[in-house]
Amino acid sequence: MRIELADIQDAAKRLEGVAVRTPLIENPTLNAIAGGRVLLKAECLQSTGSFKIRGAYNTLSRLSADAAERGVVAFSSGNHAQGVARAGQLLNIDTHIVMPADAPASKRENTARLGGNIVDYDRYSEDREAIARALAAERQAVIVPSFDHPDIIAGQGTAGLEIAEQAAAIGTEPTQAVICCGGGGLSAGCAIAMQSLLPGVRLYTSEPAAYDDTAQSLAAGRRMAVDTSVPSICDALLTPSPGELTFDILKGRVTAGLVVDESEVRAAMRFAFRELKLVIEPGGAVALAAVLSGKLETAGEVTAVMLSGGNVDSALFSEIQAEPN
Amino acid sequence: MRIELADIQDAAKRLEGVAVRTPLIENPTLNAIAGGRVLLKAECLQSTGSFKIRGAYNTLSRLSADAAERGVVAFSSGNHAQGVARAGQLLNIDTHIVMPADAPASKRENTARLGGNIVDYDRYSEDREAIARALAAERQAVIVPSFDHPDIIAGQGTAGLEIAEQAAAIGTEPTQAVICCGGGGLSAGCAIAMQSLLPGVRLYTSEPAAYDDTAQSLAAGRRMAVDTSVPSICDALLTPSPGELTFDILKGRVTAGLVVDESEVRAAMRFAFRELKLVIEPGGAVALAAVLSGKLETAGEVTAVMLSGGNVDSALFSEIQAEPN
Repeated sequence: MRIELADIQDAAKRLEGVAVRTPLIENPTLNAIAGGRVLLKAECLQSTGSFKIRGAYNTLSRLSADAAERGVVAFSSGNHAQGVARAGQLLNIDTHIVMPADAPASKRENTARLGGNIVDYDRYSEDREAIARALAAERQAVIVPSFDHPDIIAGQGTAGLEIAEQAAAIGTEPTQAVICCGGGGLSAGCAIAMQSLLPGVRLYTSEPAAYDDTAQSLAAGRRMAVDTSVPSICDALLTPSPGELTFDILKGRVTAGLVVDESEVRAAMRFAFRELKLVIEPGGAVALAAVLSGKLETAGEVTAVMLSGGNVDSALFSEIQAEPN
Repeated sequence: MRIELADIQDAAKRLEGVAVRTPLIENPTLNAIAGGRVLLKAECLQSTGSFKIRGAYNTLSRLSADAAERGVVAFSSGNHAQGVARAGQLLNIDTHIVMPADAPASKRENTARLGGNIVDYDRYSEDREAIARALAAERQAVIVPSFDHPDIIAGQGTAGLEIAEQAAAIGTEPTQAVICCGGGGLSAGCAIAMQSLLPGVRLYTSEPAAYDDTAQSLAAGRRMAVDTSVPSICDALLTPSPGELTFDILKGRVTAGLVVDESEVRAAMRFAFRELKLVIEPGGAVALAAVLSGKLETAGEVTAVMLSGGNVDSALFSEIQAEPN
């Protein structure tokens, strides 16, 4: 199935009054460092603290009355969990969410607070998809995937739609964009929206080292997988490989997959605290890290940078802020 | 001299491309707590990390060529310091800034980084105004006051102008507003702008306990002074009394002066981290604290809340985040 701008525009209508139209933020200090304009899409300010409510609500709102009645099952390290739980709360749909036992405490607490029923699993020894499938079979419930689904991709794409609209409202147009990338739902949706509205815009994904499956896949021209047993602070982005649908969209549209290491992610989180006054989580900092580390050439460009989420526990946040710059 | 909406609109023109048009942020969780709509004016996202660049740049840009040549002197705990230093940097005006030796390290560092020449004083034993006057006399330099000046008030009022415009753009109108208050420059400017554009809007100041000079003055109908030897984490708001000009504006316009204690300020900073993903400094959190503590009735209202700054050292920020909720 082909996802088009119209699908994303339809999703945007469904999300009115549900998802926050997050601001596109410009910071003089960051512009000076970049040598160009940088437009930050602050999805950390989104309802549930990340962009995930966009895709989750779009998907749940399109379920048949029958499917909605039976509830849904999802698996997620925490941001999709909160998005699905919140969408379920708003639409009165029962949600069961398979979450790793070592997910950030705040993500688990918020998911529960939003009415999600949490089912624990061990990220290193258990298969969350198998657990979710069993749970779904038992309940005759639909599984809401975290990225590889047309309604998810269209929902996440509304963030890209807003970037184009908000840039136009301040009289500019991004020449390039860099998007935080896990399974590729946000990147794929934003690619469709932005390349439809901004012909010529160059798109980049950004991933953490060791979880550069999209960068590897783009370079190889086919879906590559990484070893998901490697620890990483970027808990939101620990996917083994891009999705089938998402990679099919990304492969013809993304100029290159950028990769940042953990020290660059931590430095970006300190910059965000010190200069931007924004709380971003590790996985939400990878696109900014690509800019600050110089992995993306920004001189003379108008660069849209996705800050995809801000759900980080205060202990880790404080540990990172205490590090020297 | 009477300050009118037109003065604030003129200031807004001068500030184009200098001050950030900071977003007016809405958060579903906060709305639910408030039982109404809350519109957060995120001046923590402003250039230099607080609203102070608005008044500083407006004032410095209006100096005669002769006065600009001789440079300016200011005294400030840190946010006005950064605003003046940045305005001087942009306008190529030399700036000397008298700062307390115990100001937050980040405020001192940023002031120096922006080209401000820092002159230290001891907040408990020395008179910063006397030091600034001597310095100004020696250099034949103009003193840029931190609040009690028409150009400062008009500049800070542009934040209120934007609140009215940005609320209109999303189809709403604040019925009330609560503004963080030190000497009253921001409150006075916002009062003029907002009451000109939003007839019927009720305005409240918010101050930290022990520095409730504006609340006391509003209640007494004349300028009252507080003891500035009392320690407070709200370093941005430690003024002894409202200004002559600012109080003259505030006294006929403000419904009441609200007062929050330090635990309420700290709780607001934790809420901002956890739910809003915004970094706000103690002095920038007092208006939000008034809402979260229930000191301002928000049910059924559309409440504009000023988040006036985000310049807080990471050590204090982390200490506050580690506290139980």
